[in-house]
Amino acid sequence: MSELSVNHLLGIKYLNQKDIALIFETADHFKEVINRSIKKVPTLRDITIANIFFENSTRTKLSFELAEKRLSADVINFSASQSSVKKGETLIDTVNNILSMKVDMVVMRHPNPGAGIFLSKHVKASIVNAGDGAHEHPTQALLDSYSIRERLGDVGGKNVVIVGDILHSRVALSNIFALKLQGANVMVCGPKTLIPKHIESLGVTVETDLRKALEWCDVANMLRVQHERMDISYFPSTREYAQQFGINKAVLDNLDKQIVIMHPGPINRGVEITSDVADSNQSIILDQVENGVAIRMAVLYLLAAKIK
Amino acid sequence: MSELSVNHLLGIKYLNQKDIALIFETADHFKEVINRSIKKVPTLRDITIANIFFENSTRTKLSFELAEKRLSADVINFSASQSSVKKGETLIDTVNNILSMKVDMVVMRHPNPGAGIFLSKHVKASIVNAGDGAHEHPTQALLDSYSIRERLGDVGGKNVVIVGDILHSRVALSNIFALKLQGANVMVCGPKTLIPKHIESLGVTVETDLRKALEWCDVANMLRVQHERMDISYFPSTREYAQQFGINKAVLDNLDKQIVIMHPGPINRGVEITSDVADSNQSIILDQVENGVAIRMAVLYLLAAKIK
Amino acid sequence: MSELSVNHLLGIKYLNQKDIALIFETADHFKEVINRSIKKVPTLRDITIANIFFENSTRTKLSFELAEKRLSADVINFSASQSSVKKGETLIDTVNNILSMKVDMVVMRHPNPGAGIFLSKHVKASIVNAGDGAHEHPTQALLDSYSIRERLGDVGGKNVVIVGDILHSRVALSNIFALKLQGANVMVCGPKTLIPKHIESLGVTVETDLRKALEWCDVANMLRVQHERMDISYFPSTREYAQQFGINKAVLDNLDKQIVIMHPGPINRGVEITSDVADSNQSIILDQVENGVAIRMAVLYLLAAKIK
Repeated sequence: MSELSVNHLLGIKYLNQKDIALIFETADHFKEVINRSIKKVPTLRDITIANIFFENSTRTKLSFELAEKRLSADVINFSASQSSVKKGETLIDTVNNILSMKVDMVVMRHPNPGAGIFLSKHVKASIVNAGDGAHEHPTQALLDSYSIRERLGDVGGKNVVIVGDILHSRVALSNIFALKLQGANVMVCGPKTLIPKHIESLGVTVETDLRKALEWCDVANMLRVQHERMDISYFPSTREYAQQFGINKAVLDNLDKQIVIMHPGPINRGVEITSDVADSNQSIILDQVENGVAIRMAVLYLLAAKIK
Repeated sequence: MSELSVNHLLGIKYLNQKDIALIFETADHFKEVINRSIKKVPTLRDITIANIFFENSTRTKLSFELAEKRLSADVINFSASQSSVKKGETLIDTVNNILSMKVDMVVMRHPNPGAGIFLSKHVKASIVNAGDGAHEHPTQALLDSYSIRERLGDVGGKNVVIVGDILHSRVALSNIFALKLQGANVMVCGPKTLIPKHIESLGVTVETDLRKALEWCDVANMLRVQHERMDISYFPSTREYAQQFGINKAVLDNLDKQIVIMHPGPINRGVEITSDVADSNQSIILDQVENGVAIRMAVLYLLAAKIK
Repeated sequence: MSELSVNHLLGIKYLNQKDIALIFETADHFKEVINRSIKKVPTLRDITIANIFFENSTRTKLSFELAEKRLSADVINFSASQSSVKKGETLIDTVNNILSMKVDMVVMRHPNPGAGIFLSKHVKASIVNAGDGAHEHPTQALLDSYSIRERLGDVGGKNVVIVGDILHSRVALSNIFALKLQGANVMVCGPKTLIPKHIESLGVTVETDLRKALEWCDVANMLRVQHERMDISYFPSTREYAQQFGINKAVLDNLDKQIVIMHPGPINRGVEITSDVADSNQSIILDQVENGVAIRMAVLYLLAAKIK
């Protein structure tokens, strides 16, 4: 039987091509099971998973929780707002305490880049990174690629543009790693001030004209605009952003092909994309959400196989 | 086999008499099961239910959660304070995202009247309204009528007075619909400024003298005073309210019959009712809470039957 | 079969020596089960437990939740921040409402000393005190003694010093009761202003010089410094506290024996103990956390036996 090359999912950077293929095959299996309306498999009945969220999250947390419950794992939820963290405890102490209660896996979101990597070196448990600052968000990138594969077939050779605030986005970075690993051609597009210098070293091209990017691509992954960054001087106003980097139906219809539209959510309707685009059949946004559960089931299942 | 005439429980307004009878029979069954100390039935083992609360709630949420767990449904809790709602996402996007994770039913509390109705037109899932602003709170009205039936037999022909802030109360409105549908005589009683104009058009009588109302009724349903409204000019002070519309043991003992006292909770002891009334055997307040779980099990069970 | 002498766990004060022995034997059994990687036993399948926390808590709440889930109990979580308590409801009303939903046991943390005792007289349900103000925290004391017994054998005759803010600590009081009941010699050590007058009447000795206390003891239980009390005049500054009542590796190595170091967590590293002490093999801090789950399983199991 195949297994992952890693004991943790800390970032796409640490995976190889076979890992991704294995995760996708496993997700295919779980998705088929869910579609046959089998809501639960007893696969992880003996595993206890702690979801430790040091940042707010709705969809990622819900998606992990559902994946865990459908695998029949025991689930413990821990969020920073109710936590000892406020009392000055260190990250390792907090997590070690949780692990002393015989927890097998930790799904963690943390504001600091590398928090999961740090943790994996100091505690005994399989760590799944559910977002670490502006660094990586590997399950998001996996479900994004999986959703492209579902709509268009093999990701290899496809032209994918990631649009928005590339500089601060863990979704962008994980997607770049995942797409390159599978042989896709990757472009980033956004306001110049929000594209990291030297990003070409990751093997991507840079474009600041959205029209040109759309003419080139098969898939456009529209990153969410973070309103909380809107007052910062290097960021355009919401209206300017929408005009320059937003997609409406007219823009789509002007292209001589049907591109696929993605968004990690939550959508600011009328900013990154308009409602007619979000709800069109070119959009696979709700497929992304649905696939998120199957991908997370696959990741948890494959990592659990390595600790047993 | 009988089934409900509706696919959602959006309000009592949308039910017919047979629906209520069917819900009560089903609740009888579940109550008997619980009383035999069987804590769980495998009935909804394949159903995933999301509890989406955009307003704080203790007892309603707990009661739904217990009902869901006793039916062996998978339960996801989502509350607005941790949610994308703050990030500007629309209601439909939030709920569609949750539904993309293959959720079958949504129990929703929302501050906007009609939020559930709106949602039911835009998403695929069975919606249960757990309170929508000042509009309806159908499961509360069902458990209220069920509790009257348990104590006094058939609700038809009984005289029921609802006392308090009728204007802002979803409990009052749903109770009026439910009681009228079952053939009860309904009176509302409270400060004139807190009784909606033209409420007689719903087939109820209005009384501003509590003594007269109590002499007339078999059952008094004492609405909770919302302290947060107390500073508004048209509302009397708490003390004045208690003097004019509160019930103490002396008031009860002065009546030449034993009326039944109800309260949806949480009680402000000494305001709507005094402690000796709340804890007397004329009070069925704790029966209401107990019956709430059985009623909610019945509603969820009957709605689930329609989606399978 | 043996059973507890009590129907509730309100404090160690209400237990006898046999109770503690029975809890420890039962915990031994559950710990062995957990260590055989059996994550769940069906023991409390028919029991519903409500965790009612009127104060924030991370580790205690998680530990109870895990214990409950491993016993297959149905679990309801209720925390004060989402509760009717804010709306002015009384404690008895809140809990009676929860109990009307057919809850069998209540695990409660409350800021008021004696809240659990009060409740046990007014509601039908088995009450487990998870901390009541500065009064008692019985499961903490049980897991502390259990961890000493695991490391050193019988607690009887051992010299145990409790170091820190004895005055405000429920951990200290419950530990004193538990240790004395088992025949240990108990000393308290801390700033004079933080040691209650007449504490000798509980059969403990008082020492304000940490060095002397450490020379005397087999075990040092280092209480957590509450930063929120640091601005109060009778409390030394954190730095002064660390110098006078903190333990570092040099202090430990200067003793002519290996004492055992305990801490209820969360640790302020560098205040009560330094990192090299916390992580040394003289520390049994993580054992305490691990044993907490087994002890709580035992307590819940034994109390459930009395309500069936």
